[in-house]
Amino acid sequence: MITKPTLLIDKEKCQKNIRKMALKAEKQQLIFRPHFKTHQSIEIGNWFKAFGVKKITVSSLDMAMYFSKDWNDITVAFPVNILEIKQINQLARTITLNILIESIDTVSFLEAHLQSPVNFFIKIDVGYNRTGVSPHHTDKINNILKASNASSLLTFKGFLAHAGHTYQCRSKQEIIDVHEKALSLFTPLKKQFSTLYPDLILSYGDTPSCSVSDNFNGIDEIRPGNFVFYDLTQHYIGSNTINEIAVTMVCPIVAIHPEKNEILIYGGGVHFSKDYLILEEDKKIYGLIIDPTTNTPTRCIPDTYLKSISQEHGIIAVPEQDISQYNIGQLIHILPVHACMTANSMKKYITNSQKTIERL
Amino acid sequence: MITKPTLLIDKEKCQKNIRKMALKAEKQQLIFRPHFKTHQSIEIGNWFKAFGVKKITVSSLDMAMYFSKDWNDITVAFPVNILEIKQINQLARTITLNILIESIDTVSFLEAHLQSPVNFFIKIDVGYNRTGVSPHHTDKINNILKASNASSLLTFKGFLAHAGHTYQCRSKQEIIDVHEKALSLFTPLKKQFSTLYPDLILSYGDTPSCSVSDNFNGIDEIRPGNFVFYDLTQHYIGSNTINEIAVTMVCPIVAIHPEKNEILIYGGGVHFSKDYLILEEDKKIYGLIIDPTTNTPTRCIPDTYLKSISQEHGIIAVPEQDISQYNIGQLIHILPVHACMTANSMKKYITNSQKTIERL
Repeated sequence: MITKPTLLIDKEKCQKNIRKMALKAEKQQLIFRPHFKTHQSIEIGNWFKAFGVKKITVSSLDMAMYFSKDWNDITVAFPVNILEIKQINQLARTITLNILIESIDTVSFLEAHLQSPVNFFIKIDVGYNRTGVSPHHTDKINNILKASNASSLLTFKGFLAHAGHTYQCRSKQEIIDVHEKALSLFTPLKKQFSTLYPDLILSYGDTPSCSVSDNFNGIDEIRPGNFVFYDLTQHYIGSNTINEIAVTMVCPIVAIHPEKNEILIYGGGVHFSKDYLILEEDKKIYGLIIDPTTNTPTRCIPDTYLKSISQEHGIIAVPEQDISQYNIGQLIHILPVHACMTANSMKKYITNSQKTIERL
Repeated sequence: MITKPTLLIDKEKCQKNIRKMALKAEKQQLIFRPHFKTHQSIEIGNWFKAFGVKKITVSSLDMAMYFSKDWNDITVAFPVNILEIKQINQLARTITLNILIESIDTVSFLEAHLQSPVNFFIKIDVGYNRTGVSPHHTDKINNILKASNASSLLTFKGFLAHAGHTYQCRSKQEIIDVHEKALSLFTPLKKQFSTLYPDLILSYGDTPSCSVSDNFNGIDEIRPGNFVFYDLTQHYIGSNTINEIAVTMVCPIVAIHPEKNEILIYGGGVHFSKDYLILEEDKKIYGLIIDPTTNTPTRCIPDTYLKSISQEHGIIAVPEQDISQYNIGQLIHILPVHACMTANSMKKYITNSQKTIERL
């Protein structure tokens, strides 16, 4: 029985989301290397194996260590943290480890300290502007490649990009526009460098692009992650329907305030994290309340949403005519704004059949 | 050696912060019942004992269970979650447990299910507008008290308030104004109910008020929590100096982008949480960078701040003239915006002498 904030996972929906993306990758003849930072769970990871997944992406060496018991080809899609060379060497001894490089300093360090073979991607900035080498800086790319030749343990695998600016979109068309622009920056690199590196691949990520687009011309590999759960952010971007969201926060009502049409739940920032959506001016939304007994597209209860959160408290706005339907001790089901962060805060999942699923 | 995002704790600063607040409480003849939700650590909790602290506050039954090995008088400053009645009964058997009530429904439930004596406070809303009974609703208060008389296991202890709206202040004077207004709403309750309940106490919280004000007339107990660490939010409110902040995030540099005067660190939302400050229009600040080798008030490096964070990435803005001073693999020291949430994300502390301090 659920008595406190709990992250419920719908296994069937997860598996549908995985199947859909796996089939898309297959149809487009893409390597499907899902990002496991969203779920960070060995057990959920195993659900991917039924769909032929053999290679994965993670965003830290800790995650790579955790998954290395079950997966032997892992890309750490985060610029190499040279201070963790010990973990890199440990992983490189036992699995195919692919890392991200974007500077000569990192290459020099690895050349001096690597003990086992490692593949590397050069991280390319295709417009997100977070990190990576500009695709126009071919001199910088050439310098990294030249430097890497000095190390017999470093093998150039290709270029890697993450069009994270799709998260700022608010429609499918906007996603497609950002995606097409990103591809136009990214894909010419293959031709440019294929003479010297005929086997290089282009690895491309982000759930919005991979969910919405059907154009992956020039791309060899995709690395979406969030799609396994989806969430409200992805829904309002245009990546998924409400019914495809596979995780729900369940929280008890601890106080009811009819005078202000608000309900207080046990469930706050330490459970949901603090990501929010702004759908109307000045109206922050930290989650939408659903009717858990239906699975129709109208399962969201109208005008009922998580309007603010502090450390352990959450306040739900409820329409005046509905407030009398709620009771202290009742469990409220809430779709999260950002599933990756909520799952990271909650640290475990409960399935519909009350089974606990552990994670890192 | 630190190799990845780490929360460093300065034990000496923590103890100074505790001493200062304990002395203030003593001088004002207040019961000092610090809130332990900020640190959530048995070991840090023990530092309070040297200053005569015997009673504590927490915000969940899980925290109460964790601390009940070491503390035998605990207030759970969160409206009772009736679904956790099992934990309530378990705690009430072994310690003095004080809970928060704000509705008759909760009283009725407890009357039917309590197995051991429990003290309760009535939660009063003194203007924060999150939860609690309005101090003007004496009818509601009377109804709760009357209902509680039916249970021989429920003992009325007094009224409890949290002036959380001091967090919206931006100066000491604003804090004092909010605090005085809150007191004027809160303290009359004592006179109103002292005929029937001569031993009732008024318990009052929040770090800004307790740090800044010297007027606690009518109050019997204070429950500040954040002051043990302080943080940037508290600093800009006016609660503390920069040098009183006792926790620092330490994160490795993984990429440097001189073309945009930015540094990429390993350290993101899963480490810092996502609270931010807006000090100038449209400029979000997720942390300030300090020079860890000095302890002067000018230890913050000018115009150098954590400007954005995603799951594992953080981007630091650096003045053009400084960017060449940074190297890949260097550790950056960052003052957090909200210490409670950062500590909750990090789950442990490292002291200056490299000792690990565990927490819930």
